[in-house]
Amino acid sequence: MSATPAPTRAEAAALDAADGLASFRDRFLLDDGGPIYLDGHSLGRLPRATIERIGRTVVDEWGRGLVRSWGSEWIDLPRTVGDRLAATVLGARSGEVLVADSTSVNLYKLARAALDADPSGRRVIVTDRANFPTDRYILEGLGEVRFVDDDPDASAIASATSAGDVALVSLSLVAYRSGALLDLTGITAIARAAGAMTLWDLSHAAGAVPIDLEGAGVDLAVGCTYKYLNAGPGAPAFLYVRQDQQGRLVQPIRGWFGAAAQFAMGPVYEPADGIDRFAVGTPPVLGLVAVDEGVGVIAEAGIEALRRKSLALTDLVITLADQHLAPLGFDVGTPRAHHQRGSHVALRHPQAWRLCRALIEDLGVVPDFREPDVIRFGLTAVNTRFVDAWDAVDRLRRAADERAFERFPVERTRVT
Amino acid sequence: MSATPAPTRAEAAALDAADGLASFRDRFLLDDGGPIYLDGHSLGRLPRATIERIGRTVVDEWGRGLVRSWGSEWIDLPRTVGDRLAATVLGARSGEVLVADSTSVNLYKLARAALDADPSGRRVIVTDRANFPTDRYILEGLGEVRFVDDDPDASAIASATSAGDVALVSLSLVAYRSGALLDLTGITAIARAAGAMTLWDLSHAAGAVPIDLEGAGVDLAVGCTYKYLNAGPGAPAFLYVRQDQQGRLVQPIRGWFGAAAQFAMGPVYEPADGIDRFAVGTPPVLGLVAVDEGVGVIAEAGIEALRRKSLALTDLVITLADQHLAPLGFDVGTPRAHHQRGSHVALRHPQAWRLCRALIEDLGVVPDFREPDVIRFGLTAVNTRFVDAWDAVDRLRRAADERAFERFPVERTRVT
Repeated sequence: MSATPAPTRAEAAALDAADGLASFRDRFLLDDGGPIYLDGHSLGRLPRATIERIGRTVVDEWGRGLVRSWGSEWIDLPRTVGDRLAATVLGARSGEVLVADSTSVNLYKLARAALDADPSGRRVIVTDRANFPTDRYILEGLGEVRFVDDDPDASAIASATSAGDVALVSLSLVAYRSGALLDLTGITAIARAAGAMTLWDLSHAAGAVPIDLEGAGVDLAVGCTYKYLNAGPGAPAFLYVRQDQQGRLVQPIRGWFGAAAQFAMGPVYEPADGIDRFAVGTPPVLGLVAVDEGVGVIAEAGIEALRRKSLALTDLVITLADQHLAPLGFDVGTPRAHHQRGSHVALRHPQAWRLCRALIEDLGVVPDFREPDVIRFGLTAVNTRFVDAWDAVDRLRRAADERAFERFPVERTRVT
Repeated sequence: MSATPAPTRAEAAALDAADGLASFRDRFLLDDGGPIYLDGHSLGRLPRATIERIGRTVVDEWGRGLVRSWGSEWIDLPRTVGDRLAATVLGARSGEVLVADSTSVNLYKLARAALDADPSGRRVIVTDRANFPTDRYILEGLGEVRFVDDDPDASAIASATSAGDVALVSLSLVAYRSGALLDLTGITAIARAAGAMTLWDLSHAAGAVPIDLEGAGVDLAVGCTYKYLNAGPGAPAFLYVRQDQQGRLVQPIRGWFGAAAQFAMGPVYEPADGIDRFAVGTPPVLGLVAVDEGVGVIAEAGIEALRRKSLALTDLVITLADQHLAPLGFDVGTPRAHHQRGSHVALRHPQAWRLCRALIEDLGVVPDFREPDVIRFGLTAVNTRFVDAWDAVDRLRRAADERAFERFPVERTRVT
């Protein structure tokens, strides 16, 4: 589709040589001879600082400090790590973000709190058909879901909310399959004008694209930390509640960590003031320190610089795909406009599953697969080189061209 | 109260010399010159094996294996660690226990599922006034709670359920404050006879007292792993659903990890078969491997042997308290009958808060405090010596006798 010739490998190498973020690659554990890793949008790499931090937390704080570390080190982590995330990644204010539970549990808590607080008892929630399964499933368990088409723009949301019967608009800022980036500001404004609250899932966006929750007037958000924030497998998620909404929302899971005067252990539940009321159980300390380190690396690199490199990487993959993959039956499923693109590229092909197996098992590239026909190339700017992207496209081209995928069965095995 | 003279320190040392579990102390990181640690009922000590296991999980599985470790190492952990817990600690069968989320979130999921499945739509939940705050708060958020007095026996539950209007009886097997051990079998049978389901919180029991969920006919249970199971700060909790109840219960938080054909990511939520349907979000891998190691040590020591030593330790503390502390205004708040006693001893005193501060800050003993007047001495059999218990009582006696507590303010500071 593009008339420009695609860059050569030497040109990709020149981009790496000029990359101001190149040194950040050394902040991560890199396995010499390991595969080209393009799945950081599923599980981000291990920051070297995290190894040391977890070791210290385990041996010094838990092993030697024992229960005393709750008072001195641990009990504030959900808020302090949340504040760091707020300031450096989310465009939120201190006291608006908490790191706790999983994205799914947080989505449940906030969506339910929003519905329960709806002034006219409305139960309609707007989301899109391509939203991540956990979002769709949880929202359908809570209210009456009105689906709009994939990757909606503000006008689609305007139509869906025009009757004034919508309590909540809940969307993913970056779509997990297509990689489309939605219009945070425009959609939030439209929802507010229609009298609906907004609850954004930032899982595929946080650490990858600039986010200004305060500027956009977002009410609520959740997201995960083990993708672009590199906090490790199953690390705790975050939740955001805008300050002026905190007092009117009460979440459904009345755990002791969300109670006022927690250690008074009184007879009646009273929600804590502020963001603390959205906590539930005992904070997962090992996960929290890993979030702290992961966010620290991203914050130091800076979201704006990461975004510039991410767009250059996805541009490269899209240009190469147009030139080398399109003739082999591939289709780019990710929007081409920068303002509509996250940090992974969806490459669609009828044999996507088998091609993905060939890349992983034979060709030293780790992308991932999403039903029914998508190979996702995650381009995590903080530690992915332009030559990695170039080589990965090249190997995918060869796998398709030489039909290297044919030795793999069509049947899916369990993937993550 | 006891006529027998309390043991001397030499007699306590003789008990240690004869202790068949003494060598298990070396399985834990022990800090030479550190305090006598009697707070393992709040945060258990660090098993040495956990240091190595977490290091391997972080560096080899996350750092080098990256997303591939989900398929090969991680995705089954909630069930495999649950199975280990079921077989060695809980008296449950394979496929009945899942390690996930926090105790509070699990309690919410199971209590809500039980109420939602009640055949006649009953909403009454019976619990006791002394139950742990998170239990009381969460249950009150879900149904109409009928409170019975502290530490109820089967007849108290029989009275509370006699009208046949109770959907759920939810109690803690070992009371967090008094240390009372309830009658699991008797109460469960009474509840069942009244047509109510049972949901036990095993947080202060798992790893400390023998539990036979299958034998007692328990429907549902939850519990924490960072106390007597030594899995570390904020490690994930467990939930138990008896096999024949799994099919009829659907939990409210419809996360993707609880969905059938999770990675098909289909349009409609359908709960997974079996215990998997009680999962929600991405499993917290670092916490899960710590649970695995913590349970492993307890399983190897054996619950019956741990229970025998635990009773000998709590006997020792109670006998010493009767002789040396009662004259100084202390009162033992823990039941004296073995079948009614968990693994910590509650020592009540009007100056409990200040005495606790004196023990921690001046006298090298770490117990904990619970409002309004309880010092808890946790006797974790796997790594506490009889001389530790003896010395701790002796130092508490001195603190009270010499009024060492008077330099500490009456006002509470934040504690955990």
